[in-house]
Amino acid sequence: MENLITLDIGGTNIRAAHVIFGEGGLKIVRKLKQATSPEPIEVVQQLTESILRESTKDIDSVAISVAGIVNPKEGILLKSPNIAKLEGTNFRKLFEERYHLRCIIENDANAAAYGEKVAGAGREFEDFVLLTLGTGIGGGIVINGRLLRVAAEIGHTIISSEGPQCPCGNVGCLETLASATAVIARAISEIENGNQSALRSLYHGNFYKMNAEDIYKAALDGDMLARTVLKDAGKALGIGIANVVNVFSPQAIILTGGMIGAWNIYVEAAIREASRRAFKELISRVKILPSQLGDDAGLTGIAYLASETE
Amino acid sequence: MENLITLDIGGTNIRAAHVIFGEGGLKIVRKLKQATSPEPIEVVQQLTESILRESTKDIDSVAISVAGIVNPKEGILLKSPNIAKLEGTNFRKLFEERYHLRCIIENDANAAAYGEKVAGAGREFEDFVLLTLGTGIGGGIVINGRLLRVAAEIGHTIISSEGPQCPCGNVGCLETLASATAVIARAISEIENGNQSALRSLYHGNFYKMNAEDIYKAALDGDMLARTVLKDAGKALGIGIANVVNVFSPQAIILTGGMIGAWNIYVEAAIREASRRAFKELISRVKILPSQLGDDAGLTGIAYLASETE
Repeated sequence: MENLITLDIGGTNIRAAHVIFGEGGLKIVRKLKQATSPEPIEVVQQLTESILRESTKDIDSVAISVAGIVNPKEGILLKSPNIAKLEGTNFRKLFEERYHLRCIIENDANAAAYGEKVAGAGREFEDFVLLTLGTGIGGGIVINGRLLRVAAEIGHTIISSEGPQCPCGNVGCLETLASATAVIARAISEIENGNQSALRSLYHGNFYKMNAEDIYKAALDGDMLARTVLKDAGKALGIGIANVVNVFSPQAIILTGGMIGAWNIYVEAAIREASRRAFKELISRVKILPSQLGDDAGLTGIAYLASETE
Repeated sequence: MENLITLDIGGTNIRAAHVIFGEGGLKIVRKLKQATSPEPIEVVQQLTESILRESTKDIDSVAISVAGIVNPKEGILLKSPNIAKLEGTNFRKLFEERYHLRCIIENDANAAAYGEKVAGAGREFEDFVLLTLGTGIGGGIVINGRLLRVAAEIGHTIISSEGPQCPCGNVGCLETLASATAVIARAISEIENGNQSALRSLYHGNFYKMNAEDIYKAALDGDMLARTVLKDAGKALGIGIANVVNVFSPQAIILTGGMIGAWNIYVEAAIREASRRAFKELISRVKILPSQLGDDAGLTGIAYLASETE
């Protein structure tokens, strides 16, 4: 298969691309982007139709990377807390019936992991785990050079049985302690509790608007609260990494997402904690390194997955 | 390959077998067993030589299932807290040089998982995880009908970041809260702290000798302490199962080891906890069931792995 549409469906934006495979590998012909809200299924259709209209070649399939738990065999999005309106959608049925397009679907972090494998930081490794560190935490697992087509919801593994409530319904998930959301919530809570921090005067005192980058900048300026919050989140990430290492004995962990901007505080703390906690015989050989493809990893991975799927 | 020696190396015993593959599948010609201590490497050699002496057919390989972290590609036992004297042993080198036998090596729980896949409770599933619930907790993962040849040390994933100290050096590992060792330690500690229990009068008052079966029997007789200890361990196991479900989205979890004797208290508590904690969309389709092969799962699995390895 050589001519396809990719859709990257996230909570904020839906990105579509027209992708062609040629001699030099994958070529992106055209890229579109639209806000996911208020009606994501309409956006999906508008973007698809826009690419179909403009295409001079025959497009025969669509490859979807989506934030949520999928059933790749049936083409269904089972669960997606951030795009609740799409939960239960049978994308395969939709695209086959409406556009006569073959459809494959995969979780966005899984697709990103495979993208890094074929064209990014994972090229030299047979066994690695990718973690997306943003609003939430996602995972993708490559073993023997192949993507494990499992849920890989590493952000929703419990690392602290009595930990904070998670939107998924569980408590103590890795995501509740190590994501950007967790970092912001903790910083706000500390300020509300009267702890001193330069973050208090952000946005003319409306510090509730702070984002993870603000916290990182404050930490670089020496703000102790900001440093502590980032380091503690890093330690929690380190526990998650130790668990991943003890289960998958990978050659590498590839990190991506907005939080890796705080590498020298947050990720460094994670590496120290993981080194203390995982089996020495395993962690000592693991390389921890950043993504090379960034935002294009999902698009790349899902396109290659589609090209390899019968 | 049709004619091989299997070795199942555990902390207490080393079991050897002469195995032949014929039309009807695997046939065990002869079984031997010897205590692991005091010199495990000598026991390994004695058992191997004994089988080689008695064999009328040409044996060309040895397949080793061992309690510990292995490097299957190089044939080395990297780490084995319960058989420390074997740590670092290059089994492939030993068997090739000394006996001119081809050698494959795998972790015991991994081998057991593959045994259940080819001839036991896993036959009807493409994706499942096996957990061995005994003195420690081990894991083996089968995806797409194939064994994932990774560490799979699910017993050494952290589920409680500030939990009890684990012999592995970490704290809060699943094993420290849900294994037979954990159950016994907790019961003894509760009695030492003055809590009432029929367990106190076991072994003429030397309750330090109690085992997990004693606790289960007391629980069946209505002993509240014994029931609480088993249920709490089950809850911890349930957290481990929830994590496994959210990562591997398996069709089944297969449980084996001495602790499944307490199924109606311990495993039932685990199932309830996992159902509360894992994604509903995933846990609702997971079957949780006991091993069919029991102690022979490792032997079976490692023999089949050897027969399929070039």
